[in-house]
Parts: sequence; structure tokens; C-alpha cells
Amino acid sequence: MTGREFFTASTVAEALTSFRPRRRTPGVAVALGQASGAVPMDDVLAPAPLPGFARSTVDGYAVRALDTYGVSDGVPAYLELLGAVRMGAVPEAELRPGGAVAVPTGGAVPSGADAVVMVEHTQAGVPGTVEVTRAVAPGEGVVAADEDVAGGGVLVRAGRPLRPQDLGLLAAAGVTSVVVHRPPQVALVATGDEVVLPDTMCVRPGQVRDAITSALAALVVQAGGVPVSHGIVPDDARALEAALRGAVADCDVVVVSAGSSVGGRDETATAVAALGPPGIHLHGLAVRPGKPTLLAEAGDVPVVGLPGNPLSALVVFRLVGMPLVRLVGGWRVEPTPPTVTARLERAVPSAAGRLDVVQVAVVDGVATPLFGASALLSRMTRADGYVLILEEATGLDAGAPVTVHAYL
Amino acid sequence: MTGREFFTASTVAEALTSFRPRRRTPGVAVALGQASGAVPMDDVLAPAPLPGFARSTVDGYAVRALDTYGVSDGVPAYLELLGAVRMGAVPEAELRPGGAVAVPTGGAVPSGADAVVMVEHTQAGVPGTVEVTRAVAPGEGVVAADEDVAGGGVLVRAGRPLRPQDLGLLAAAGVTSVVVHRPPQVALVATGDEVVLPDTMCVRPGQVRDAITSALAALVVQAGGVPVSHGIVPDDARALEAALRGAVADCDVVVVSAGSSVGGRDETATAVAALGPPGIHLHGLAVRPGKPTLLAEAGDVPVVGLPGNPLSALVVFRLVGMPLVRLVGGWRVEPTPPTVTARLERAVPSAAGRLDVVQVAVVDGVATPLFGASALLSRMTRADGYVLILEEATGLDAGAPVTVHAYL
Repeated sequence: MTGREFFTASTVAEALTSFRPRRRTPGVAVALGQASGAVPMDDVLAPAPLPGFARSTVDGYAVRALDTYGVSDGVPAYLELLGAVRMGAVPEAELRPGGAVAVPTGGAVPSGADAVVMVEHTQAGVPGTVEVTRAVAPGEGVVAADEDVAGGGVLVRAGRPLRPQDLGLLAAAGVTSVVVHRPPQVALVATGDEVVLPDTMCVRPGQVRDAITSALAALVVQAGGVPVSHGIVPDDARALEAALRGAVADCDVVVVSAGSSVGGRDETATAVAALGPPGIHLHGLAVRPGKPTLLAEAGDVPVVGLPGNPLSALVVFRLVGMPLVRLVGGWRVEPTPPTVTARLERAVPSAAGRLDVVQVAVVDGVATPLFGASALLSRMTRADGYVLILEEATGLDAGAPVTVHAYL
Repeated sequence: MTGREFFTASTVAEALTSFRPRRRTPGVAVALGQASGAVPMDDVLAPAPLPGFARSTVDGYAVRALDTYGVSDGVPAYLELLGAVRMGAVPEAELRPGGAVAVPTGGAVPSGADAVVMVEHTQAGVPGTVEVTRAVAPGEGVVAADEDVAGGGVLVRAGRPLRPQDLGLLAAAGVTSVVVHRPPQVALVATGDEVVLPDTMCVRPGQVRDAITSALAALVVQAGGVPVSHGIVPDDARALEAALRGAVADCDVVVVSAGSSVGGRDETATAVAALGPPGIHLHGLAVRPGKPTLLAEAGDVPVVGLPGNPLSALVVFRLVGMPLVRLVGGWRVEPTPPTVTARLERAVPSAAGRLDVVQVAVVDGVATPLFGASALLSRMTRADGYVLILEEATGLDAGAPVTVHAYL
């Protein structure tokens, strides 16, 4: 693996642009309580205007704005108190010219009124009357019946995960069930003769417990998918091909982490190619760590081959695997990543033409690169995030301001 | 509600600093598959060193570094090939001086060897021998048996939510169950005579469906809690007090959204005060929207009173409610928020001494403020995030660079 090879590998951006599988999960109806983060299949429209009635935004008196023109502290208007609106109730009184109806914040504004004067701009007058000491314009103190959302207006957009306020607006509109993309089932296939289950009490020298599956499962959930572990497959071409066929048949996306030996990597490509067309789209990504990445499609099921090192596998899965899971799950937007700005504690060299993903610990605004073998997962658990050194750069200087992608 | 009143209210920062309830949820053991985002009660230590054996990081030959000193392409060392290590297997051969053992990436380095020469720096020689053409230093090509984590070393820290890589490291160490803080049960109490359930088909003028509970529930989950809806309570002092008593008895945090009328707010404070000591800590927050916020403790259960407007309630719950849920749930760190930098499309005025939370839509790096009544929840559903105008500022200029807190 020499530096030159990297120039023949695809960049991450190229990979994301060129590899756009068409598979999307079908729609399922979910109740609002289960819909947080779910991705609507279609725009959801308001069955009726919201709030549905003219609503006061202040505690005060519903009036005709015309009746308050030109009034002031010195020259108040004297309006006839025609009644009071109770919260949640249909107004009993209708407003007549020259009249006023008491309305609480959130109460329905009676018909005939076009504004609400704040109680602070009124004074108690002769019983049965209200002194208004400030003029109001039409619409002041009132939310119109269709001002929040018009009837038939868009409540939430297709392809954007539902946020808390979206659920609130849907609830307000009485939409208590939404058709969303089914969360993609993501098959996780670990490989390697050396890999044993995490609950193996005693491991022999040479054996390692499966770290990748637990970590990938959490990332799949973060991307809106459902992880489906397909266990650990030995470094055997036929066993691997059989496992991948099973995964492709069952799931929406297949993720296979290759054994860390050279042989393991080749076997993965061979097994993936054997799954049928359209086959391998890309083998080799210009990223460090993570070069031996593989992207393929078997039928319409995208297959991601990850390096065998847990750290490398997680780096690549964040960069290309999670966007793929979101794509299949119907996302039409990109999420905003949590980032912090920091200064780089020391210079970090990088080869041009390759994206470098540098693990960093951040303390008091200083990002310290964590070096060491990619085989050390603790480099990533000690990190607070990572810094990207882009393809066109040949490194970053000490003290350089950097954007740290924070780990969640 | 005049401008002057804001100066007597606490700032958000003061509120978060001064209101530190001591309640923490107790520990429960969870399996790794359910532990993503869970908060460990204590540091979790490695039962044994990791990887547990000297492990090769390259495909090559395990050697004594001493045997390669001074070699070059022209003057190779000729080492005796003593065998090969299989992946996952205990090395059969022991390394003798002058010898070499083939090792795959990730394979166990046999005892007696202190380095691994990459296969690229060797040549096939006389059968039974390996030509080494480059020197290696002791430790090169090898991860030591305790280099990832030492025995008894910290795998994950108490008080920090478990990230995907943390789960991976725990799995690698054979720790398949972790004692974490039980997710806080967060009671959600909606109030208001005008509020009806979201599945109410026909609403009368004056009635609104409950939007807050659905939205708050999603925010509670984002903060690591479990929302427990306590329904909708009418604007009645005794009914409210009874509902709050039930919520305090059952849950770890109580959130009550007040009816939007002035009366409703006063009733909330009265009912909260009646729950007993230590009582109300703060009533009135210097934030817009969100001033009528209330923070209290009933016994050791924190109680948050939110404004009745869904938009205001969600703004305040993000600022003070979510940190409180995380605190009770054992978080000892603050999460990194997702942010984007943008330019403000137009000037936004603000009163000094008050934190302004401005809803913005972001398109092509331009943040457009969304104005309108706080009663309009659609202002927040149309927003991509919010901009904070700090207490010391009196507004932001058009074109100013701003940090947008992105909505998830």
C-alpha cells in the first residue's frame, strides 16, 4: 500500500455523488408518539386552517380598530363592555360597533372584532364601559384563523426527519398518524477467523472479541436504521458468500467488515461480486484510515465493505455508510453535524489527494491529535471528535483553526 | 409585561448555574445492545489488557529487530523461516535469534519477536529463508498486549453518554453489560381549559389541540429521558395541584405547561408552591420568548413550569429543561450542539438584559429571521434553527455572522 495508490482511489465526495442506490424503504403508518425522527413519505397537508379561529395573543378587550382611532391617555374612547370570552369556549357575545368584549390570551375573538387592545392600555371606567387609551390597528393582538397554517397548507415536508416542533404542529392539526419510510434494516456481517463474540469469557492469544458490530449498530440507529446482526463469518469464501446472500435477501442495506488480513479483503470483493449485478461500484477510497472500502449493489440492495480495523471501519461508516442508510430511509436533506472550533495543538502532515480523518481530544479550545495504530480503538474512545484534512491539503499547521466534528 | 420587568428576571445562565437539583436516577444494568447513549454510573475498567497479546499491524514477518540492524536492499539479512501464524490461532512457533515467522495483519506475534517487517520489505529467498531488505526498530509493526487499554485501565468514563466507539471498546473487553443511570421519567402535564387531545376530530372555536405534549416528549427523548404524559388538566387550582402531586410521586422531573392566560400562570405557581419545600427557586426568566418560566423543587423532584404557548414552551425547554433532564440522568458533560454559521439577512433588534431566541430559516448561508406571534408554532416548523442574541447585546446588524443552532 504505497502513497501512489491513493490517487487511483475515489474521493469520499465522488463516492457519495456517484453511488446513489435507488432503493427506498416503503411507507408505514406510525402514531405521533413513535414518529420522532421518522421520515415522511409525502408532504403532510393541514386538513383545516390553524388555529381555526381568530385568537387573541394578549389579555385585553376585543374591539373594532376603527373605534380606537385617535385615542390617547388624555382622550380615551369609552366602549360598551358587551361580555367576556372564556378560555376554550365559543364567544357568546358578538361585537357591535362601539363595544368591547373581554378576551384572555389564547381566547377566541368574537365576530365583529378585528383587534384586541391589551389590558394595560385600558382603564376601569364607569361600570359597563371600558376606557381605551391607545389605538390599535386592524389585526393587532389577534392571530387570524389561518395564520399558523392555511387549510391544505404544508404541515411537514416529505424527506425531512420529523423534529419535535413538527410533531407539535401535526398534533395541533389533529394529524395523529403519519406515513413514514420504514426504518432501513441494516445487516451487519463481521468476518474473520480471529473474531469471537463479545461475551466470550476467555480469549486465546490471537483471538479478539467483535467490537465492530456493537459500534456499528449504534451508528445505524443514529442514522435512522435498525441494525440486524448477522453474526461472525469465518474467512471462508463460501461461508461469506452464503452469509451475504442471506443478508441481501433480508435487509435494505448490507454492511460487511472484512477480516483484517489481505486475504480477507480480497475474499470480500470476490463474495460481493458473486452476488450478481450491478456489482462492485468502487473498491478503494482515498481516505485514511479506510482505504480498502468497497461499495456495491446486489440487485437494489447497497452493500458496504468496511476495513477490518474497528477504528477504520467506524471512520468510513460515518463518512459513507450513514449517508447511505439515510438515503435508503428516505432522507432528502443532510443533517447538520455537531461541530466545535478549536486550534490544532501540533502540525499534522497529510498526503495530497487523500482525505485524512484525524482523531482529536479537545480541551479548552485546543484540539490534540491522537496518533497511533489504526488497530487501537481506544484512540477513538479517547477522542472527542475528528478533524478532516481535505484532499487538496498537504497537512495542517500547529495553531491552525480547525472544525472538530464532535462524537455523539 | 413591560421591558423593565425583564431586568428583575434571572438570566438563563444564572438559572442553570443556581438551580442544581441533587436528584440523580439510580443505576440499572443494561446490555450493550441497549446501552447507546446511556450514562455510566461509574468508570468502567478493563478486566484484562487489550488486545491481550502482541498483535501484528501489517502482513509480514515477525523478527528480532536486532537481526535487521543495518540491512538494506544491497545487504539483506537472511533469516530462517520458522513457520507461519494463522489468524486467530496461538503461534505454534517460538522465534529464535536469526529466525522469522510469517504473520498476517492482526495475527499474534510469537514470543521472542519484538517487531514485524512488512512483506513489501522482504524478498523470497532460498526456500526456508526470508531476505529482509529494511531494518525495523523494536515495536515496529506490533501493537503491544496492553497498548489499546491496560488491565484495570478506564474503558469508559462515568457521566458521559456511551458513544458507538465506547460500545465497541466495551465489547472488545468482554464487558457486555454496563450499570447506567436509569433514564429519567419526565412527567408532562399540559394545562388549559381550551386544550383538547390531539385526536379530537372536531374542535370548537376557542379550543386548540394539545401540541406541547407531543413536541416535549420528543425533546425529552433527545435529552435521554422517558416522557410520561399526565394528560391535560383544566384551569382549576385543585385539579392542577392533584395532577402535580401525582406527577411528583411518579417521576424524576415534572414539566408543566401553563395555560396561556394570566390566571393560568398564577395558578401554576400557587399549585407548585403548595407541593412543599424547597419550593419555587425562580419565576421569570430573562428570555424572549419564555419569560413566565418557573423552576422549583418539590422534595428532590425538579419542577419546570413552561409558558403556555407551544413555541415559547419549546424554546425554554431546550434552554433549561433539557439540561435539567440530562443532569438528573447523570450527565457530567454538556453535549456539543449542531450549529452552522450564516449571515443574518436583516437586522434584529433586542432589549439589553434579555436573551432573545430568534427563529431563522437558513438558505445558502443566509439566515432569515422568522417573525410573528409566539402563538404561531409554524414559525418554528419553518425554521431550520435559532440564533441567540445575548443579554449584553441590543440587537444584531444585517449581514452579521451568526451561529445558528440547528434543529434536529
